[in-house]
Amino acid sequence: MTLAECFPIWEKLTPEQQNRLAAAAVPKKASKGTVLHNGSADCLGLLVVGDGQLRALILSPEGREITLYRLFSRDICLFSAACILRSIQFDVTIQVEKDTQLWIIPPGLFKELADSSLAISSYVNELISSRFSEVMWRMEQVLWQSFDRRLAAFLTEESTLEGSPVLHLTHERIASHLGTAREVVTRMLRDFQAEGMVRLTRGTVELTDPERLRRLGGE
Amino acid sequence: MTLAECFPIWEKLTPEQQNRLAAAAVPKKASKGTVLHNGSADCLGLLVVGDGQLRALILSPEGREITLYRLFSRDICLFSAACILRSIQFDVTIQVEKDTQLWIIPPGLFKELADSSLAISSYVNELISSRFSEVMWRMEQVLWQSFDRRLAAFLTEESTLEGSPVLHLTHERIASHLGTAREVVTRMLRDFQAEGMVRLTRGTVELTDPERLRRLGGE
Repeated sequence: MTLAECFPIWEKLTPEQQNRLAAAAVPKKASKGTVLHNGSADCLGLLVVGDGQLRALILSPEGREITLYRLFSRDICLFSAACILRSIQFDVTIQVEKDTQLWIIPPGLFKELADSSLAISSYVNELISSRFSEVMWRMEQVLWQSFDRRLAAFLTEESTLEGSPVLHLTHERIASHLGTAREVVTRMLRDFQAEGMVRLTRGTVELTDPERLRRLGGE
Repeated sequence: MTLAECFPIWEKLTPEQQNRLAAAAVPKKASKGTVLHNGSADCLGLLVVGDGQLRALILSPEGREITLYRLFSRDICLFSAACILRSIQFDVTIQVEKDTQLWIIPPGLFKELADSSLAISSYVNELISSRFSEVMWRMEQVLWQSFDRRLAAFLTEESTLEGSPVLHLTHERIASHLGTAREVVTRMLRDFQAEGMVRLTRGTVELTDPERLRRLGGE
């Protein structure tokens, strides 16, 4: 894939803007597990995802994690360029969840384009609003949904992402996605198993009644 | 106060844009307790606060509230115009916390201006980013529940040590006591002040509701 295919509003840019972006973009391959960006002090630049999967998360002072959202092909990550968005002052970590091919747009160039092009400024606007909505949705889940619903929604989402009813995930890993303790996850999964919604083996969770999980997750 | 004094980027608008805004803005007085906006389906328009205090909050399905942020003189509320920001899809309630004089800018006009003016688009950008940061900060507080308690406990302890409700302490000093950044302390103290627990002057923090601080601090 090319940058032109992955940059969402490419066709709205002038040829000069396209040339400058193409010349400045640094292609990069990042492997699973890599931390690409860590907190607002870090200013890598705008990330344009070509192929792969990234995860945006927040960390508690004690190291608990909550997944905020995921980035897929053709998605753009703004938070890794937070330094140029003066008003963004919170710390998001961006981690590679599947091997990813991406481009890095230097923060200075991106700022210059956003400051001079209404199309880019409007797009940034929409992007921040949509991330804001995703994060609010996730937060409301964490704050107000009972844990069984959150776990069911998580398993449904993962299964859709993987395109498989068998998830290769440890309870530890699920716990860190959902900002809770491993014991809480294990107990709830056993409960789900007793009700016939999942089957547990070492290192996997198989969704045996995805429809019921989906309903429980509130979709 | 006039709209020109309260609208943050007035001087960056063209005379024609200024005239259209001034002609379309509807002045309104709202008294304490009134709900101005309720959820994303509601599309009142952009609110420009002249004088007073508004509160943005989210409600759980069971009616629990969480304050997201407050709006004061010269602040602008975007969420009451969420219908025109397609990507904002979560429900915020705006409530009048102190009697408020404000202007309502019709959503259609605001959209037209944001779509045609880079200055307005950039401003909206900054506004959303800054609300996003405030909300994230608040969420982290709620999720990890630590710093407000620690700060309350610290102020209670200092006040006991000094034998006085008036503490001569800079925010910098408090930050270094609690191992955090000055901005974090300033933001939380302002929050405590808005809730009537402290009064802030240059170089001092006065405990105006020591009993509540003591309880918050977990004693």
